[in-house]
Amino acid sequence: MEAAEARRRIADSRVARLATVGDDGRPHIVPIVFALDGDKLYFAVDAKPKRTANLKRLKNIAANASVSVLVDHYEKDWTRLWWVRADGTARIVTDDTETHRAIELLTRRYPRYREARPPGPVVAIHIHRLSGWSAEP
Amino acid sequence: MEAAEARRRIADSRVARLATVGDDGRPHIVPIVFALDGDKLYFAVDAKPKRTANLKRLKNIAANASVSVLVDHYEKDWTRLWWVRADGTARIVTDDTETHRAIELLTRRYPRYREARPPGPVVAIHIHRLSGWSAEP
Repeated sequence: MEAAEARRRIADSRVARLATVGDDGRPHIVPIVFALDGDKLYFAVDAKPKRTANLKRLKNIAANASVSVLVDHYEKDWTRLWWVRADGTARIVTDDTETHRAIELLTRRYPRYREARPPGPVVAIHIHRLSGWSAEP
Repeated sequence: MEAAEARRRIADSRVARLATVGDDGRPHIVPIVFALDGDKLYFAVDAKPKRTANLKRLKNIAANASVSVLVDHYEKDWTRLWWVRADGTARIVTDDTETHRAIELLTRRYPRYREARPPGPVVAIHIHRLSGWSAEP
Protein backbone atom coordinates (compact mmCIF):
# COMPACT_ATOMS: atom_id res chain seq x y z
CA MET A 1 0.00 0.00 0.00
CA GLU A 2 1.26 3.50 -0.88
CA ALA A 3 2.24 5.67 2.09
CA ALA A 4 -0.32 8.36 1.17
CA GLU A 5 -3.12 5.78 1.11
CA ALA A 6 -1.92 4.27 4.41
CA ARG A 7 -1.92 7.74 5.94
CA ARG A 8 -5.42 8.48 4.66
CA ARG A 9 -6.75 5.26 6.18
CA ILE A 10 -5.23 6.04 9.58
CA ALA A 11 -6.64 9.57 9.43
CA ASP A 12 -10.11 8.19 8.63
CA SER A 13 -10.05 5.69 11.51
CA ARG A 14 -11.48 6.52 14.91
CA VAL A 15 -9.71 3.86 16.94
CA ALA A 16 -6.26 2.29 16.83
CA ARG A 17 -4.33 -0.18 18.94
CA LEU A 18 -1.08 0.75 20.60
CA ALA A 19 1.60 -1.83 21.33
CA THR A 20 4.39 -1.02 23.77
CA VAL A 21 7.09 -3.16 25.38
CA GLY A 22 7.72 -3.43 29.12
CA ASP A 23 11.15 -3.43 30.73
CA ASP A 24 10.58 -7.19 31.15
CA GLY A 25 10.46 -7.53 27.34
CA ARG A 26 6.75 -8.32 27.29
CA PRO A 27 4.39 -6.61 24.84
CA HIS A 28 1.36 -4.64 26.03
CA ILE A 29 -1.56 -3.61 23.86
CA VAL A 30 -4.43 -1.18 24.39
CA PRO A 31 -6.96 0.59 22.17
CA ILE A 32 -6.41 4.33 21.74
CA VAL A 33 -8.23 7.25 20.20
CA PHE A 34 -5.84 9.60 18.50
CA ALA A 35 -5.22 12.58 16.23
CA LEU A 36 -2.63 12.95 13.47
CA ASP A 37 -0.51 16.07 13.06
CA GLY A 38 1.93 15.73 10.18
CA ASP A 39 4.14 12.77 10.99
CA LYS A 40 3.07 12.77 14.63
CA LEU A 41 0.23 10.84 16.21
CA TYR A 42 -1.13 12.05 19.55
CA PHE A 43 -3.16 10.33 22.21
CA ALA A 44 -4.06 11.41 25.71
CA VAL A 45 -4.71 9.68 28.96
CA ASP A 46 -8.37 10.44 29.44
CA ALA A 47 -10.72 10.66 32.35
CA LYS A 48 -12.05 7.12 32.26
CA PRO A 49 -11.63 5.52 35.66
CA LYS A 50 -8.18 3.94 35.74
CA ARG A 51 -6.65 2.03 38.58
CA THR A 52 -3.67 4.32 38.60
CA ALA A 53 -2.36 7.39 36.82
CA ASN A 54 0.94 5.53 36.45
CA LEU A 55 -0.45 3.56 33.54
CA LYS A 56 1.42 0.59 32.14
CA ARG A 57 1.49 2.21 28.67
CA LEU A 58 3.28 5.29 30.07
CA LYS A 59 5.66 3.23 32.18
CA ASN A 60 6.54 1.14 29.12
CA ILE A 61 7.10 4.21 26.93
CA ALA A 62 9.42 5.69 29.56
CA ALA A 63 11.45 2.46 29.53
CA ASN A 64 11.28 1.75 25.78
CA ALA A 65 10.15 4.43 23.34
CA SER A 66 9.52 2.02 20.45
CA VAL A 67 5.82 1.64 19.75
CA SER A 68 3.61 0.21 17.04
CA VAL A 69 0.11 1.45 16.20
CA LEU A 70 -2.40 -0.49 14.14
CA VAL A 71 -5.66 0.39 12.47
CA ASP A 72 -7.52 -2.39 10.72
CA HIS A 73 -10.73 -3.17 8.99
CA TYR A 74 -12.48 -6.51 9.43
CA GLU A 75 -15.60 -7.87 7.86
CA LYS A 76 -16.96 -11.27 6.86
CA ASP A 77 -16.05 -10.59 3.24
CA TRP A 78 -12.32 -11.16 3.42
CA THR A 79 -11.75 -9.50 0.05
CA ARG A 80 -12.33 -6.21 1.89
CA LEU A 81 -9.84 -6.64 4.74
CA TRP A 82 -7.05 -4.15 5.23
CA TRP A 83 -4.72 -2.85 7.91
CA VAL A 84 -2.22 -0.06 8.33
CA ARG A 85 0.60 0.02 10.84
CA ALA A 86 2.58 3.02 12.05
CA ASP A 87 5.88 2.21 13.73
CA GLY A 88 7.57 4.94 15.65
CA THR A 89 8.96 6.44 18.79
CA ALA A 90 6.84 7.74 21.62
CA ARG A 91 7.51 10.47 24.14
CA ILE A 92 5.39 11.90 26.92
CA VAL A 93 4.70 15.53 26.05
CA THR A 94 5.88 17.93 28.72
CA ASP A 95 5.58 21.22 26.80
CA ASP A 96 2.33 23.05 27.63
CA THR A 97 1.88 24.52 24.14
CA GLU A 98 2.22 21.14 22.47
CA THR A 99 -0.10 19.54 25.05
CA HIS A 100 -2.71 22.21 24.40
CA ARG A 101 -2.44 21.79 20.63
CA ALA A 102 -2.71 18.00 20.84
CA ILE A 103 -5.79 18.20 23.07
CA GLU A 104 -7.33 20.68 20.63
CA LEU A 105 -6.79 18.22 17.77
CA LEU A 106 -8.29 15.41 19.85
CA THR A 107 -11.36 17.38 20.94
CA ARG A 108 -12.03 18.36 17.30
CA ARG A 109 -12.06 14.72 16.33
CA TYR A 110 -13.97 13.26 19.28
CA PRO A 111 -17.18 14.98 20.45
CA ARG A 112 -16.95 13.19 23.79
CA TYR A 113 -13.68 14.97 24.49
CA ARG A 114 -15.53 18.28 24.14
CA GLU A 115 -17.72 17.31 27.09
CA ALA A 116 -14.80 16.00 29.11
CA ARG A 117 -11.39 17.23 28.01
CA PRO A 118 -8.74 14.60 28.65
CA PRO A 119 -6.53 15.69 31.54
CA GLY A 120 -3.53 13.96 29.98
CA PRO A 121 -0.65 13.45 29.95
CA VAL A 122 -0.46 13.52 26.17
CA VAL A 123 1.81 11.14 24.28
CA ALA A 124 3.35 12.03 20.91
CA ILE A 125 4.36 9.24 18.56
CA HIS A 126 6.81 10.18 15.83
CA ILE A 127 5.95 7.91 12.93
CA HIS A 128 9.07 6.51 11.30
CA ARG A 129 7.43 3.93 9.07
CA LEU A 130 3.97 3.43 7.65
CA SER A 131 3.06 0.06 6.20
CA GLY A 132 -0.19 -1.42 5.08
CA TRP A 133 -1.91 -4.35 3.48
CA SER A 134 -5.16 -4.58 1.61
CA ALA A 135 -6.89 -7.68 0.23
CA GLU A 136 -8.17 -5.59 -2.65
CA PRO A 137 -5.63 -5.10 -5.40
CA MET B 1 -14.20 -7.41 34.23
CA GLU B 2 -14.67 -11.00 35.40
CA ALA B 3 -12.49 -13.60 33.66
CA ALA B 4 -15.56 -15.53 32.42
CA GLU B 5 -17.00 -12.39 30.84
CA ALA B 6 -13.62 -11.49 29.31
CA ARG B 7 -13.39 -14.98 27.86
CA ARG B 8 -16.92 -14.80 26.44
CA ARG B 9 -16.11 -11.51 24.71
CA ILE B 10 -12.97 -12.91 23.11
CA ALA B 11 -14.87 -16.00 21.98
CA ASP B 12 -17.56 -13.81 20.40
CA SER B 13 -15.05 -11.64 18.50
CA ARG B 14 -14.00 -12.44 14.95
CA VAL B 15 -10.79 -10.43 14.86
CA ALA B 16 -8.05 -9.66 17.36
CA ARG B 17 -4.72 -7.89 17.29
CA LEU B 18 -1.51 -9.68 18.12
CA ALA B 19 1.48 -7.85 19.59
CA THR B 20 4.90 -9.49 19.55
CA VAL B 21 8.38 -8.17 20.33
CA GLY B 22 11.36 -8.39 17.98
CA ASP B 23 14.87 -9.29 19.05
CA ASP B 24 15.60 -5.56 18.69
CA GLY B 25 13.06 -4.86 21.49
CA ARG B 26 10.56 -3.25 19.12
CA PRO B 27 6.88 -4.15 19.23
CA HIS B 28 5.06 -5.49 16.17
CA ILE B 29 1.30 -5.64 15.76
CA VAL B 30 -0.95 -7.39 13.26
CA PRO B 31 -4.63 -8.34 13.08
CA ILE B 32 -5.37 -12.05 13.42
CA VAL B 33 -8.35 -14.33 13.10
CA PHE B 34 -8.30 -17.00 15.74
CA ALA B 35 -10.03 -19.83 17.58
CA LEU B 36 -10.10 -20.54 21.32
CA ASP B 37 -9.58 -24.00 22.77
CA GLY B 38 -9.68 -23.97 26.56
CA ASP B 39 -6.88 -21.68 27.69
CA LYS B 40 -5.25 -21.75 24.26
CA LEU B 41 -5.78 -19.39 21.36
CA TYR B 42 -4.82 -20.55 17.87
CA PHE B 43 -4.10 -18.65 14.72
CA ALA B 44 -2.68 -19.81 11.41
CA VAL B 45 -0.59 -18.28 8.71
CA ASP B 46 -3.06 -18.23 5.87
CA ALA B 47 -2.87 -18.20 2.11
CA LYS B 48 -3.05 -14.44 1.60
CA PRO B 49 -0.11 -13.31 -0.49
CA LYS B 50 2.75 -12.61 1.89
CA ARG B 51 6.18 -11.37 0.95
CA THR B 52 7.78 -14.29 2.73
CA ALA B 53 6.81 -17.40 4.67
CA ASN B 54 9.32 -16.27 7.30
CA LEU B 55 6.89 -13.74 8.68
CA LYS B 56 7.96 -11.14 11.21
CA ARG B 57 5.35 -12.40 13.72
CA LEU B 58 6.84 -15.92 13.58
CA LYS B 59 10.40 -14.67 13.76
CA ASN B 60 9.49 -12.56 16.81
CA ILE B 61 7.74 -15.46 18.54
CA ALA B 62 10.79 -17.67 18.00
CA ALA B 63 12.97 -14.98 19.64
CA ASN B 64 10.52 -13.92 22.38
CA ALA B 65 7.49 -16.06 23.21
CA SER B 66 5.69 -13.30 25.15
CA VAL B 67 2.65 -12.04 23.27
CA SER B 68 -0.40 -9.91 23.93
CA VAL B 69 -3.73 -10.27 22.13
CA LEU B 70 -6.44 -7.62 22.17
CA VAL B 71 -10.08 -7.58 21.17
CA ASP B 72 -11.92 -4.32 21.49
CA HIS B 73 -15.21 -2.67 20.71
CA TYR B 74 -15.40 0.92 19.53
CA GLU B 75 -18.37 3.10 18.74
CA LYS B 76 -19.23 6.78 18.87
CA ASP B 77 -21.13 6.24 22.11
CA TRP B 78 -18.21 5.91 24.50
CA THR B 79 -20.42 4.47 27.24
CA ARG B 80 -20.35 1.25 25.19
CA LEU B 81 -16.60 0.85 24.77
CA TRP B 82 -14.84 -2.24 26.02
CA TRP B 83 -11.70 -4.25 25.48
CA VAL B 84 -10.27 -7.57 26.57
CA ARG B 85 -6.61 -8.50 26.57
CA ALA B 86 -5.07 -11.97 26.71
CA ASP B 87 -1.42 -12.07 27.72
CA GLY B 88 0.43 -15.27 27.17
CA THR B 89 3.18 -17.33 25.63
CA ALA B 90 3.23 -18.36 22.01
CA ARG B 91 4.73 -21.39 20.33
CA ILE B 92 4.76 -22.54 16.74
CA VAL B 93 2.84 -25.83 16.62
CA THR B 94 4.92 -28.66 15.21
CA ASP B 95 2.68 -31.59 16.14
CA ASP B 96 0.50 -32.72 13.22
CA THR B 97 -2.47 -33.74 15.39
CA GLU B 98 -2.56 -30.38 17.15
CA THR B 99 -2.14 -28.52 13.83
CA HIS B 100 -5.05 -30.47 12.35
CA ARG B 101 -7.27 -29.79 15.37
CA ALA B 102 -6.45 -26.07 15.35
CA ILE B 103 -7.21 -25.77 11.64
CA GLU B 104 -10.49 -27.61 12.22
CA LEU B 105 -11.44 -25.09 14.93
CA LEU B 106 -10.49 -22.20 12.62
CA THR B 107 -12.41 -23.52 9.62
CA ARG B 108 -15.51 -24.02 11.79
CA ARG B 109 -15.35 -20.35 12.80
CA TYR B 110 -14.43 -18.78 9.47
CA PRO B 111 -16.33 -19.83 6.33
CA ARG B 112 -13.55 -18.44 4.14
CA TYR B 113 -11.15 -20.97 5.65
CA ARG B 114 -13.48 -23.73 4.39
CA GLU B 115 -12.85 -22.56 0.82
CA ALA B 116 -9.12 -22.12 1.37
CA ARG B 117 -7.70 -24.01 4.34
CA PRO B 118 -4.79 -22.11 5.85
CA PRO B 119 -1.55 -23.92 5.06
CA GLY B 120 -0.05 -22.80 8.37
CA PRO B 121 2.11 -22.95 10.35
CA VAL B 122 -0.28 -22.72 13.29
CA VAL B 123 0.64 -20.75 16.40
CA ALA B 124 -0.70 -21.67 19.85
CA ILE B 125 -0.90 -18.97 22.50
CA HIS B 126 -1.19 -20.20 26.07
CA ILE B 127 -3.20 -17.55 27.87
CA HIS B 128 -1.73 -16.76 31.28
CA ARG B 129 -3.79 -13.70 32.07
CA LEU B 130 -7.10 -12.30 30.88
CA SER B 131 -7.94 -8.71 31.65
CA GLY B 132 -10.67 -6.44 30.46
CA TRP B 133 -12.28 -3.08 30.77
CA SER B 134 -15.80 -1.93 30.02
CA ALA B 135 -17.23 1.58 30.19
CA GLU B 136 -20.54 0.11 31.28
CA PRO B 137 -20.65 -0.70 34.96
